[in-house]
Amino acid sequence: MLREPSKELLETAIDLEAFVTEVEAALTEALDTGTNAGPEGPEILMEAARNLILAGAAKRARPRLTFLFGRAIDAPVDALVDVAVAGELIHAGSLLHDDVVDGAETRRGRPTANALWGATAAVLSGDLVLTLAFVQLRQRPRVITSEAVETIATMTRGVMAEVLARGRVELPLDQWRAILSGKTGSLFAWCARSAALLVDDDEAAERFGECAERLGIAFQLADDLLDLQRLGTGKDSFADILNREPTFPILVAAGRSEKVRREVARLWNAPRVTPEDAEALGRSVLATGAGAATVDALHEEIAAALEALGPYAERPGAREIVAWSRELEARARNTLRPRG
Amino acid sequence: MLREPSKELLETAIDLEAFVTEVEAALTEALDTGTNAGPEGPEILMEAARNLILAGAAKRARPRLTFLFGRAIDAPVDALVDVAVAGELIHAGSLLHDDVVDGAETRRGRPTANALWGATAAVLSGDLVLTLAFVQLRQRPRVITSEAVETIATMTRGVMAEVLARGRVELPLDQWRAILSGKTGSLFAWCARSAALLVDDDEAAERFGECAERLGIAFQLADDLLDLQRLGTGKDSFADILNREPTFPILVAAGRSEKVRREVARLWNAPRVTPEDAEALGRSVLATGAGAATVDALHEEIAAALEALGPYAERPGAREIVAWSRELEARARNTLRPRG
Repeated sequence: MLREPSKELLETAIDLEAFVTEVEAALTEALDTGTNAGPEGPEILMEAARNLILAGAAKRARPRLTFLFGRAIDAPVDALVDVAVAGELIHAGSLLHDDVVDGAETRRGRPTANALWGATAAVLSGDLVLTLAFVQLRQRPRVITSEAVETIATMTRGVMAEVLARGRVELPLDQWRAILSGKTGSLFAWCARSAALLVDDDEAAERFGECAERLGIAFQLADDLLDLQRLGTGKDSFADILNREPTFPILVAAGRSEKVRREVARLWNAPRVTPEDAEALGRSVLATGAGAATVDALHEEIAAALEALGPYAERPGAREIVAWSRELEARARNTLRPRG
Repeated sequence: MLREPSKELLETAIDLEAFVTEVEAALTEALDTGTNAGPEGPEILMEAARNLILAGAAKRARPRLTFLFGRAIDAPVDALVDVAVAGELIHAGSLLHDDVVDGAETRRGRPTANALWGATAAVLSGDLVLTLAFVQLRQRPRVITSEAVETIATMTRGVMAEVLARGRVELPLDQWRAILSGKTGSLFAWCARSAALLVDDDEAAERFGECAERLGIAFQLADDLLDLQRLGTGKDSFADILNREPTFPILVAAGRSEKVRREVARLWNAPRVTPEDAEALGRSVLATGAGAATVDALHEEIAAALEALGPYAERPGAREIVAWSRELEARARNTLRPRG
């Protein structure tokens, strides 16, 4: 009895890696098909898409979650591959358009499509990648496609709301959360709901969607903490300040300290922020206890996420999601420890 | 017997205007719904969409064709409204992204979303408008949605191919046609095919799709002629030359006259083209007989379009398409007449 769970965990881990490998192959195939379709398919669009999607730096978080949720309700693997591939393509399409929006030069440490081929290729490549997501879902229940459409609309609104929130140091925390929910949470939720909709399990769809949305927000909170943790490493130090991005720790710190609020406002209005300015502000943010508050918020999201699983929490697959969430939280807490 | 066709034409004309009015109302409603959906729906995206879609300058060519093809096979009007609205939304989404691609400042005589709100709003507004098209089709046969996805992919490739063809005076005419077919013809074809697919008439879908695609190309040829006709009016004179756009008449003229070819190449490589340069080149293009060649090409497209209708050509609705096509051709021929 004692060994059983770890055997199950091991098996699931092996199956998960096999699944991700299948997803990689299906992504490659989808992008190849996208290239060959139609005589007038300019190679540059798929080149831009491949540059982003097959670069090897992607964590495949959405496919992984899709697999684990799917396992919890015994959804057929080939259908889960389609959902995972579509989820990754929707994610990629949104990143391609985001990079135009941001004028971003790099993503995951590599030049963006926007930087390499210009806004034209990035916009059009994003459009094409989104269509490939729907091609991938052609054999799957129509409700999954409908919800994908809604999800893209929600993500789009989230990105626009984020752009409008940029530089707003007084952004209320519930608005910050709504933006995150739209931009990141909604696609996590779609992957999880779709896994359940493949086997017509409406209760699971409801529970998994809620769980995954909160996990998406928890991941973002963990990212915000990482950005703070990079302080003093001299590398991309406090990039969120440079990007005028109102992250959770920054908003909390500004709410707690008038001095921080003024300093954030000053830097966001400055024509140029030096790494030294960013570094000093990062330390002031941490001094307000905003790091601990972020870990608390992350803890709350994860607790609610796992609560949402209800009876499914004990299923194979779901157990890995629970373990994974606990690990995310533990790593987040670790970022607060003083480094030697 | 003699009066019957004109009575039918009159009735169809009245019904067509009623249909367009219904489409306008449905477009307004779709854009309102798009605004209200979700708490984080920033008004700016729908504002950008409304600025383009409800501006009053749109000809609603796609809805009109949808209605006429639909009437030829007695498709239900409420379903045709959905197809027409979706067609117009896909068209608008593509225009919003095109204006980013082109950096266009005006469209239909009004400032673009790109110029008014920047590339961010234009990209995201285009994304959102495309999702609304799919929401509109939710109650309709799934094949119509699948073909809409393929159509958007084809249009996207067409736009990219057009960008790559810019400034290429030696572009082969068949490549020019393939670009047009992708950029414009494919959505015309989708509207026409969808009208037939609503009533499961596969033969009609095939014939209407072929017909509409060619009509789309014919419309573009008529546009190219209009651009030439503006010569000497002092207004937007020969805009295609200024845009480095290889249109059919320019390509034909360059193929016929080495002098024209060199002059086009020179102007397309010049940092700035004066209206006088454009005017002079326009006259040289016409002197090669490229105008007449364009009318001939337009005639061929229309003949093939009407041929494709086969037995359906005699149906109500289709008869109006035939009459409309003949008028388009007659107007095109008129542009060649010397003005007094």
